[in-house]
Amino acid sequence: MGSFQSATHTRPESLDTRKSTLAAIIASGGRIPVAVLGATGVVGQRFLRRLAVHPFFEPVYLAASERSIGKRYRDACVWQLDGEPWAGLGDMTVVACDPGAAPAPIAFSALDTEPARLIEPAFAQAGAAVFSNASAFRMEHDVPLLIPEVNAAHLGILARQRAARGWKGAIVTNPNCTTVALAGALAPLERAFGIEAVMMTSMQAISGAGYPGVSAMDITGNVIPFIRNEEAKVEVESDKILGTLRGSGISSGLHAADFPVSATCTRVPVLEGHTITISLRLRGNPSIEEVAKAFETFVPDTAGLSLHSAPSRFLTLSDLPDRPQPRRDAEADGGMRIHVGRLRICPILGFKFVSMAHNTERGAAGASVLNAELALATGAI
Amino acid sequence: MGSFQSATHTRPESLDTRKSTLAAIIASGGRIPVAVLGATGVVGQRFLRRLAVHPFFEPVYLAASERSIGKRYRDACVWQLDGEPWAGLGDMTVVACDPGAAPAPIAFSALDTEPARLIEPAFAQAGAAVFSNASAFRMEHDVPLLIPEVNAAHLGILARQRAARGWKGAIVTNPNCTTVALAGALAPLERAFGIEAVMMTSMQAISGAGYPGVSAMDITGNVIPFIRNEEAKVEVESDKILGTLRGSGISSGLHAADFPVSATCTRVPVLEGHTITISLRLRGNPSIEEVAKAFETFVPDTAGLSLHSAPSRFLTLSDLPDRPQPRRDAEADGGMRIHVGRLRICPILGFKFVSMAHNTERGAAGASVLNAELALATGAI
Amino acid sequence: MGSFQSATHTRPESLDTRKSTLAAIIASGGRIPVAVLGATGVVGQRFLRRLAVHPFFEPVYLAASERSIGKRYRDACVWQLDGEPWAGLGDMTVVACDPGAAPAPIAFSALDTEPARLIEPAFAQAGAAVFSNASAFRMEHDVPLLIPEVNAAHLGILARQRAARGWKGAIVTNPNCTTVALAGALAPLERAFGIEAVMMTSMQAISGAGYPGVSAMDITGNVIPFIRNEEAKVEVESDKILGTLRGSGISSGLHAADFPVSATCTRVPVLEGHTITISLRLRGNPSIEEVAKAFETFVPDTAGLSLHSAPSRFLTLSDLPDRPQPRRDAEADGGMRIHVGRLRICPILGFKFVSMAHNTERGAAGASVLNAELALATGAI
Amino acid sequence: MGSFQSATHTRPESLDTRKSTLAAIIASGGRIPVAVLGATGVVGQRFLRRLAVHPFFEPVYLAASERSIGKRYRDACVWQLDGEPWAGLGDMTVVACDPGAAPAPIAFSALDTEPARLIEPAFAQAGAAVFSNASAFRMEHDVPLLIPEVNAAHLGILARQRAARGWKGAIVTNPNCTTVALAGALAPLERAFGIEAVMMTSMQAISGAGYPGVSAMDITGNVIPFIRNEEAKVEVESDKILGTLRGSGISSGLHAADFPVSATCTRVPVLEGHTITISLRLRGNPSIEEVAKAFETFVPDTAGLSLHSAPSRFLTLSDLPDRPQPRRDAEADGGMRIHVGRLRICPILGFKFVSMAHNTERGAAGASVLNAELALATGAI
Repeated sequence: MGSFQSATHTRPESLDTRKSTLAAIIASGGRIPVAVLGATGVVGQRFLRRLAVHPFFEPVYLAASERSIGKRYRDACVWQLDGEPWAGLGDMTVVACDPGAAPAPIAFSALDTEPARLIEPAFAQAGAAVFSNASAFRMEHDVPLLIPEVNAAHLGILARQRAARGWKGAIVTNPNCTTVALAGALAPLERAFGIEAVMMTSMQAISGAGYPGVSAMDITGNVIPFIRNEEAKVEVESDKILGTLRGSGISSGLHAADFPVSATCTRVPVLEGHTITISLRLRGNPSIEEVAKAFETFVPDTAGLSLHSAPSRFLTLSDLPDRPQPRRDAEADGGMRIHVGRLRICPILGFKFVSMAHNTERGAAGASVLNAELALATGAI
Repeated sequence: MGSFQSATHTRPESLDTRKSTLAAIIASGGRIPVAVLGATGVVGQRFLRRLAVHPFFEPVYLAASERSIGKRYRDACVWQLDGEPWAGLGDMTVVACDPGAAPAPIAFSALDTEPARLIEPAFAQAGAAVFSNASAFRMEHDVPLLIPEVNAAHLGILARQRAARGWKGAIVTNPNCTTVALAGALAPLERAFGIEAVMMTSMQAISGAGYPGVSAMDITGNVIPFIRNEEAKVEVESDKILGTLRGSGISSGLHAADFPVSATCTRVPVLEGHTITISLRLRGNPSIEEVAKAFETFVPDTAGLSLHSAPSRFLTLSDLPDRPQPRRDAEADGGMRIHVGRLRICPILGFKFVSMAHNTERGAAGASVLNAELALATGAI
Repeated sequence: MGSFQSATHTRPESLDTRKSTLAAIIASGGRIPVAVLGATGVVGQRFLRRLAVHPFFEPVYLAASERSIGKRYRDACVWQLDGEPWAGLGDMTVVACDPGAAPAPIAFSALDTEPARLIEPAFAQAGAAVFSNASAFRMEHDVPLLIPEVNAAHLGILARQRAARGWKGAIVTNPNCTTVALAGALAPLERAFGIEAVMMTSMQAISGAGYPGVSAMDITGNVIPFIRNEEAKVEVESDKILGTLRGSGISSGLHAADFPVSATCTRVPVLEGHTITISLRLRGNPSIEEVAKAFETFVPDTAGLSLHSAPSRFLTLSDLPDRPQPRRDAEADGGMRIHVGRLRICPILGFKFVSMAHNTERGAAGASVLNAELALATGAI
Repeated sequence: MGSFQSATHTRPESLDTRKSTLAAIIASGGRIPVAVLGATGVVGQRFLRRLAVHPFFEPVYLAASERSIGKRYRDACVWQLDGEPWAGLGDMTVVACDPGAAPAPIAFSALDTEPARLIEPAFAQAGAAVFSNASAFRMEHDVPLLIPEVNAAHLGILARQRAARGWKGAIVTNPNCTTVALAGALAPLERAFGIEAVMMTSMQAISGAGYPGVSAMDITGNVIPFIRNEEAKVEVESDKILGTLRGSGISSGLHAADFPVSATCTRVPVLEGHTITISLRLRGNPSIEEVAKAFETFVPDTAGLSLHSAPSRFLTLSDLPDRPQPRRDAEADGGMRIHVGRLRICPILGFKFVSMAHNTERGAAGASVLNAELALATGAI
């Protein structure tokens, strides 16, 4: 365990001190103590499964709501994942979602929206860098909504965030689990051509609703063509992600892309992996070969950074006629790859294709951890 | 049993003779002997379940392929449906798909496309009115592609069909199981406003692929974003259905509507009921209230005909936030209703909504039987 | 509506008065007003779907827990069943589970065990005949645990129940949803030979756990080999059902059968229909043909009574190699039939077979309604 | 690649030569060339996924039936598994199931029973050690039916097999996929106490039927209480596995255990993992604590051998109330662990519990590979 933690986990006084402390821990082969907020839920469990074997993060504080505090982790939740139950952390004691009870320099948040509104700023105020899967702050103008391969530069807004809010820490968010399969697939096309309009229908996995989440009585052998609040999120998040950071320091600003997105979100009887069908209009009338090439030659912003949780390929375009499929493809590359297939002409908007991504890894826990790795690698925290 | 059958099932010599013979059978409370071609498949079974209790059709010839001929029906197929196994017809002997072996004046076809190309014309040539669920002749310019409530007038093309092909009988087709959920929902809007463009994604039930059809290894907990040949069918059939019959008699012609349809077809782990998400552009800039009203006030072409297999309501627009759902709604009204819901604004094309229909009833067996009822009620056969 | 209800639903003062009042309502073609306790749950909904079209029961009081009182029924619960939503009763107002708020002479109880302990006796005390699906009173020595076709005579214990408890009304229970598939199949064998030992494994449908009940995260593509408290219920209820009423009037007693039952209960991804595999040892060394004949020639206690909700056949023994199957067979005969198949030799106990029954009809709502019909037909209430 | 293969894959002339050649390959860090017979099926794919990354086996011959010969592997089958499609071997050319076309010293057989009857002896005759998942030779008196942890000594029968059949090679089989979950769990109890009688019901995964195997129309939301020929296999295989090798060399003999097994086999909508419920009678009246201890202290025959494909624990007894579960537990330890849980008293036979194992790894491909590793480690081939 690194020196930071042995120093009783007090947080450093300044950003520069923190940076050098965290860098020193990693350089020495140690692990940075981290907190997981909302550790008992499905996404919290995925955070812990990742972090339990992470080379330079160590889950030290498992924080959850009132009724779990003081319990052993194994008694506080039903373990949902395969592999080692409770990620081998079953004997740890659950603490409160409070910066005093979980004094780590980095916190991963699997909180629901409402509790996140209060708890995440408290941690940021207390000096923690919060990497959040919650939707509470995603659309705030000074909070990065990050897909590291796509908009790594957006971390630059943190200077303004810290200045404006008086935080020593920070909040960095990842997109909604459906947005990531959309915006991840759009990024190469936005960069190569520019996007004018996007129509999409999602077929979302039940794990997206948490645990117990969807009743088996509702979804067995069924499609539920509605997911509360989901379409509105998808329709705004992509524009923010594919937008541009302008200016720098405290005068920087995030300028969203402005293409319209029309989303229909449905639930299907799939465990992991959100599948979305996409039709879109591009600028400049490219050929289908050019579109395919844009997918295949996309260079992620993270190229060269060797981030631990990054997939071997950010996005692959399949030439099999019936892929991607969630059950067969979602787990590839640790669940961190965007899978695109069935690229073809759309007689109305120009092109259509299918995108699929693992909703609780690429769309949740893995996304936040990758965000933290990017922030560390670039010195943003 | 009616007089027709007792007359050894020879077919009448002329259309007029036939019409009066069939009318007389019904008037006397008798039942018209009918053949089911492809009786052993999933759709064939649904035909038989309907016809076994039909007030004026009687399934007398159960026709199937070589390997079933001469077997008892119960030995020729695994019964797939609930209710009375083999529809109580398990002791009947399967005959060949040949007009000589199945000399009924009316034949219902559940054949696959390839065999249908040869067998259906043979029956029509021999004098039978063939009501077909196969795709083989759907797009022929002199073959009606019928949804009785939507384009009943298209039966008028039969005069030309008989003249051009020299048939005493006829072929009448019903749409692909996905098309019916699309075109059925579009009909009120085409009539009220005119349609300019339609984008759709289907989530189709496994029964649409017949039996054994889809492997459980492929679809359990999965989405397969591809169904061979399906998108092309959906993209052309709707325009034909929503087109117009012009002229009359042997100079009549079917003029297709000309709006583009962009289809993405997927398979989901649902037993019955194809769900489709639709976005579309309408002429004349209607309000959403006007669109809702168009759905609610649509008067089907079959109004007043009291067709036996018609649903109590052709189409219903739900105001529940999460309907229609295939498992819960598909069986309503004998599986013959079109279910529309989630009507809302689409920022790209104008409006979007969800449609759902029972694929092996409204989209197959029930559709053909209703076509036959319409043809009889209007004197078209 | 019958005269009873128009008399403001006060309950009759004596059993004899009640009997003649109820008989008069039915004789006049009227319907007896009934209450449904726990009307908002899955079983409550099944009660209402049956009662809404019942020839001589009319659901007049829809009673539920605190949070639903005063709401319209359509706002108080998500309708789970297919067919007419809320059984057409969506505009009725939910009342309290209190005899004063639901003053019907007959109450059907879909309550959970704990609330049933207090509420059912209150109704019985107030004069109502309570037909309960709850487990709270099933094993009480003066409460009949009824399968009408199997132990109709057990209604005789009501005389003792009324005397001992000072109730003007009564409580009559039906078995646990798994027990009914077991005891229903055992009844012909107990009667023909006598049973010495029974081993069983159940594969139970998710609807057995109510709504929201089982999380889709738990059961999708999975087997859960445990259902809390279920095995203990199954192991004692069969002996009571297959026992004997001895004596009469207030000195009558129910003497349970004494064969041991060893139960293993599991949950599988099936919507309706509990399947159980059974091995058992019989007295007297019968042949397998004799066992089959015992199933086929069983004469139910209800023979000749023409009870409205009774199946056309109480139990059928299939000779198909792979039946019964829950999805294909459970709905037969209104979900009220016991399906037995795969009868064969067990090298350890003698015989083995598979039994299956609809868990929320034969095992819940349908069972209680049939109990009430039996009680009326035999003058027990 | 090892020297054996570079020697054009001719097989060695004598057993001793082969042993030293294979040992030399492994000692030099090389890989022994192996053939997979039936490489295109579900089990064949699992063989290849294992062997592609195996430290000392190298899949060199992918053999399949007539219609695949000469095709690239990627064109010869639809890849069913997750991870790298075609195990990275998609460009290999499929060869015939013939010892001349696949001249490897070791062959793994995923053949169906009928082809296995002819093909496996041909390979054994030609000098190959065949590790077979087929049922064709399992019950032959001179063929080992092996679970390495349970009856490693049975390999001793090979001396007799070679002598009697005149084979230079050999056939070694692994049990049916259901048997392994049964016999694996019985082994500690047979060894500690002796078994008198076993009753079991299986709930088997769809992958057990291969691909396309079970139709989704049959199993979605259903239980099929019948699997052709399965119960008979399960009822005899366990006795053979738990039997004893007596004598040695060509006079050795396998003496089966003699307890009766009564099996009921069903199919449920699960992808991988057969779950079985077991009740059994033990000798000597042990306590439940003693039974639990027998599970927990069982020392597998492979202890100390460090076989590559062996699980970290052969068998674990869970104290969680609702485990094992196939979807959550089957993949543990590479799918090679036997999972036991719910140990409790059976009022009829003494004890009951639940066992679960991965049917296409522990019950098929993984089993055969482990058999080969054992045979090599012990010098049996």
